[in-house]
Amino acid sequence: MAQAKIRLFVEHGLGPGNSVPVGRDQANYLFNVMRLGVGDHVALFNGTDGEWLCEAVDTGKRRGMLKCVSQSRPLQMPPNLWLLFAPIKKARTDFIVEKATELGASRIIPIVTDFTNSERIRQDRLQAHAVEAAEQCGGTFVPEVAELTKLSLLLDAWPSERHLMFCDEARVGPAETLNGCTKGPWAVLIGPEGGFSDPERERLMALPQTTAISLGPRILRADTAAVAALTLWQATLGDWV
Amino acid sequence: MAQAKIRLFVEHGLGPGNSVPVGRDQANYLFNVMRLGVGDHVALFNGTDGEWLCEAVDTGKRRGMLKCVSQSRPLQMPPNLWLLFAPIKKARTDFIVEKATELGASRIIPIVTDFTNSERIRQDRLQAHAVEAAEQCGGTFVPEVAELTKLSLLLDAWPSERHLMFCDEARVGPAETLNGCTKGPWAVLIGPEGGFSDPERERLMALPQTTAISLGPRILRADTAAVAALTLWQATLGDWV
Repeated sequence: MAQAKIRLFVEHGLGPGNSVPVGRDQANYLFNVMRLGVGDHVALFNGTDGEWLCEAVDTGKRRGMLKCVSQSRPLQMPPNLWLLFAPIKKARTDFIVEKATELGASRIIPIVTDFTNSERIRQDRLQAHAVEAAEQCGGTFVPEVAELTKLSLLLDAWPSERHLMFCDEARVGPAETLNGCTKGPWAVLIGPEGGFSDPERERLMALPQTTAISLGPRILRADTAAVAALTLWQATLGDWV
Repeated sequence: MAQAKIRLFVEHGLGPGNSVPVGRDQANYLFNVMRLGVGDHVALFNGTDGEWLCEAVDTGKRRGMLKCVSQSRPLQMPPNLWLLFAPIKKARTDFIVEKATELGASRIIPIVTDFTNSERIRQDRLQAHAVEAAEQCGGTFVPEVAELTKLSLLLDAWPSERHLMFCDEARVGPAETLNGCTKGPWAVLIGPEGGFSDPERERLMALPQTTAISLGPRILRADTAAVAALTLWQATLGDWV
């Protein structure tokens, strides 16, 4: 079977014989930069229909057309896992979104905490990072990056069935473990570099959904903590087991 | 007790009453950039004597002198864990060294494999990254970054007592798990973006020290794989448990 070296995310239905128009940016990339010609193959995915091997049928440099040949990979949904994190420096925030996509988070929620420094994000840019990470890592699903939300508002309406893995670097006392925890909807919560405030910590610990987890005896940066926590969750309760 | 906001790595013995000279770069940073004066405090560590609260006694902008007051943290050695990885793009290689330091690797060995693209590294620059990561994350130990070494040469002389956690994205067949594995000296091996060659894979699987581990159903970038693998090891066999 023909192989595609290029994988692209599109916002268009994919199915047997479907025609998929490509707009200016992707046409430029495919037919100008990568010099694909009519009959060449591309892998497309849209987050819902799996990955499809597609063939170029019109290769204009401003717009083109691809045609679905066959499904090359079924849709692989990640577990029902949210990542909540407080945005930090730009490069490290981008990194967290990239890694959460690779590691199989289903929804990424940037949060404002009492000690969050960076109070602005570009949601569209972060969403584009998630798309790019899925394109690179062979994923068929792209997690939604939510708008920046206050942690306190999220907790006001926290779903009763969603467990919370609370990674608190400054926590005193014995840590809990994920072993033996219930599978199902979860969220991983990573604090800002300055940690959580005492009121936040008290509120989180009072939630019955909370499991407080230790990430070892060394202080981790927030981006490292995000990757480590997602790894532990996936290896214990997620789709790595 | 006085608190120091700045932590620095020095190559000098630290002990009760020790005087510690600081050279041009660190003197400029401490007394010029950060404007520390006589009597101000700095935390120093050297990788062997723990962390010491020190007081500035001479604050010249080209050289200065600090004096050890008291030990503020004992030496905390990481487990006997090597990280072997094939260098990739510069920023991601820097990242791997930073994360391995935070996550508690004791030795970092960049390797050349059959499919390694980037064949040059700046060992001194990577070592400086490890120092900086230890300064930032409150570590008292700095892992040694080795010179670039061929994987085949390392395997020729592989220590019989050192277990090998082989993270092979392309592996077919059921994965093993670290649960139940023996504690002791280990190495985590992460391949290049292109994976391992068949002869490499055969040789690694033939080693009695090898445990082949899966990092989930999605393809991970090499830097993500390094963080995920170190996390799994630390949480199962290392000092997170």
